Amino acid sequence: MPSISLKTPSASYDVTLGTSLLKTLRQRITRATGSRTSRIFFVTSPALWKLWGEAVTESFESATVLFLPAGESHKRFASVEKLLEQLARNGADRDSILVAFGGGVVGDLTGFLAAIYMRGIRVVQVPTTLLAQVDSSVGGKTGVNLAAGKNLVGSFHHPVAVIADIDVLQTLPKNELRAGLQEAIKSGVIRDPKLFSFLEKNADKVLAGDTKALQTVVDRSLRVKADVVNQDELENGLRMILNFGHTIGHAIEAATKYTVLLHGEAIGWGMIAAIRLAEQRGAMSEKDAKRVVDLIHRYGPLPAFKAKAERLVELSAGDKKNRGGAKRFILPTGIGTVEIVTDVTEDELLAATSAMLQEMSAMTKTKKQVKR
Amino acid sequence: MPSISLKTPSASYDVTLGTSLLKTLRQRITRATGSRTSRIFFVTSPALWKLWGEAVTESFESATVLFLPAGESHKRFASVEKLLEQLARNGADRDSILVAFGGGVVGDLTGFLAAIYMRGIRVVQVPTTLLAQVDSSVGGKTGVNLAAGKNLVGSFHHPVAVIADIDVLQTLPKNELRAGLQEAIKSGVIRDPKLFSFLEKNADKVLAGDTKALQTVVDRSLRVKADVVNQDELENGLRMILNFGHTIGHAIEAATKYTVLLHGEAIGWGMIAAIRLAEQRGAMSEKDAKRVVDLIHRYGPLPAFKAKAERLVELSAGDKKNRGGAKRFILPTGIGTVEIVTDVTEDELLAATSAMLQEMSAMTKTKKQVKR
Repeated sequence: MPSISLKTPSASYDVTLGTSLLKTLRQRITRATGSRTSRIFFVTSPALWKLWGEAVTESFESATVLFLPAGESHKRFASVEKLLEQLARNGADRDSILVAFGGGVVGDLTGFLAAIYMRGIRVVQVPTTLLAQVDSSVGGKTGVNLAAGKNLVGSFHHPVAVIADIDVLQTLPKNELRAGLQEAIKSGVIRDPKLFSFLEKNADKVLAGDTKALQTVVDRSLRVKADVVNQDELENGLRMILNFGHTIGHAIEAATKYTVLLHGEAIGWGMIAAIRLAEQRGAMSEKDAKRVVDLIHRYGPLPAFKAKAERLVELSAGDKKNRGGAKRFILPTGIGTVEIVTDVTEDELLAATSAMLQEMSAMTKTKKQVKR
Repeated sequence: MPSISLKTPSASYDVTLGTSLLKTLRQRITRATGSRTSRIFFVTSPALWKLWGEAVTESFESATVLFLPAGESHKRFASVEKLLEQLARNGADRDSILVAFGGGVVGDLTGFLAAIYMRGIRVVQVPTTLLAQVDSSVGGKTGVNLAAGKNLVGSFHHPVAVIADIDVLQTLPKNELRAGLQEAIKSGVIRDPKLFSFLEKNADKVLAGDTKALQTVVDRSLRVKADVVNQDELENGLRMILNFGHTIGHAIEAATKYTVLLHGEAIGWGMIAAIRLAEQRGAMSEKDAKRVVDLIHRYGPLPAFKAKAERLVELSAGDKKNRGGAKRFILPTGIGTVEIVTDVTEDELLAATSAMLQEMSAMTKTKKQVKR
């Protein structure tokens, strides 16, 4: 099984990637934590547990399962408090281990629970969506949403192990697979031209859910993430490049109230806007820009949404990545390279966002004509 | 102004102690943080702000004030979420600084807000009760209560500065002053015989609120705390000695639903129980035990409460200081020395707790006779 090492000033752990990992989950957790007697608390969604609960608990003598309903709307303080009370009532102590079995919402929220229960207990991430496997399960970011914005609350709390079983992706809805692959494209664009080429050449296999092809994609994406986090754990510099496509992507999610697009889909559109901005500036060649935009659409279709360019630019100003007023923007300069710039004007951002929206509008029209 | 240094693996900051510090608060915060432009958000209680708001903001050109009603019942997730939403709506960003102006509840909760807002922003502690000045404002522990128990949630998040102004204690209710002094007695017993003697010799002055005497008490108590935390930030060993009196103290608070006694008062009774246990074991001489118990009562009266010894012992078993089943107990062995033991039996604890309750009962009877 390939295993990828995270080594930051505050944590050191392995990401194990492969197939048939679930059936030996207990042993893997014991090996990673050195704790044979710690109590295990799973946090998962009811639907996922119905599909995989039996397989997951095969290697366990006992474990407590706490449920979090699926969906972003449950990534709120009400769920946090409820689950913390359940942990306390079920006797979780400082030696207990939480296992997040689910996608981004379960992973972010369970990581946060582990960060704050009794001032910090251990968590193992077992990501079940492509998005969580390539991105959110690794790197220690945890988060909860406020009414005022997404992920405005959280902490840095690394897992003691990440166990990513490709088999679990079999039951992942196809649109979630495609959305997750947008983050893989992101990894290629910012740092791994070979991953980018692989995604170009093997699109059919990857989209069909071919295990070996998916494993290559997850593996390479994870290595990008690990490499970046190992160099800048707390996002003071390099780690910001992981936010390529996220400035406008987050604004799209906020403008559509998180109900129209999956996160990866919003990031797909956000990357297109960033590419258009890079083109306008002459930072990226027309040819490279076309390759990236084509690949994003190849892993689509990205659903259309309704929002004005002005509104998206306005919403992007409130992104929490901003610090002390300076707005950072991740600008691709080629396939595999980006730069962090702070001089993007509102006009530039507006022009790029408008270009992206026009593209969407043109595609929608084409589709309608085809339908006729 | 005496200033005490905290230097742990994760943080380094000064505690400034003195009088007339509030009028230069802005400059002190700027000096400690190096941030002249960061936005400042005060968290405080309405009653306290009425008394001190004008003095506190004298040195500020602008600041936002968020209110948390006084009392332990507000140290809950509902308050946390409400204040986080207010921070977001008022435009707090990663460079903003929270200032906790209040006692233990304000300090613990504001520290937690700072730990989780945007995954961590800076906090300055300006403690206004004796308890907060000698103990809770220093050391990075933050906390929120669950229905299932007190401080079951929180994180380690050190302030960037602690500014303790003795003047503020002038408006502190006398019972709160006395309760806070129980924690000073604790500091003396566990590590500072000179502080203990000072408290014995200067009881009248200290209890009358004499500024110079109080400053000596706060200064020496803080040095004990800083010294311990500097050696064991995360409470894996030495820091546990700060919990002297807290095993039964916490149980008393839980048994009386946090409404009968102030925290320091419960710790006073908890220390008496621990002293009786030490005596039973022969760990502490009868003479030393008498000195400690006499001093605790000298800084009383500790209010009586109703609880069965069995119930207190039962509740103490759920204390979160326990880890993986092993129960640690802080046993005084003299004035200024303690040891951490793990072999205290339930019977011993029951006997010591019963002895403490009998003492309380005897005192109550005496008082009634006197009244007649």
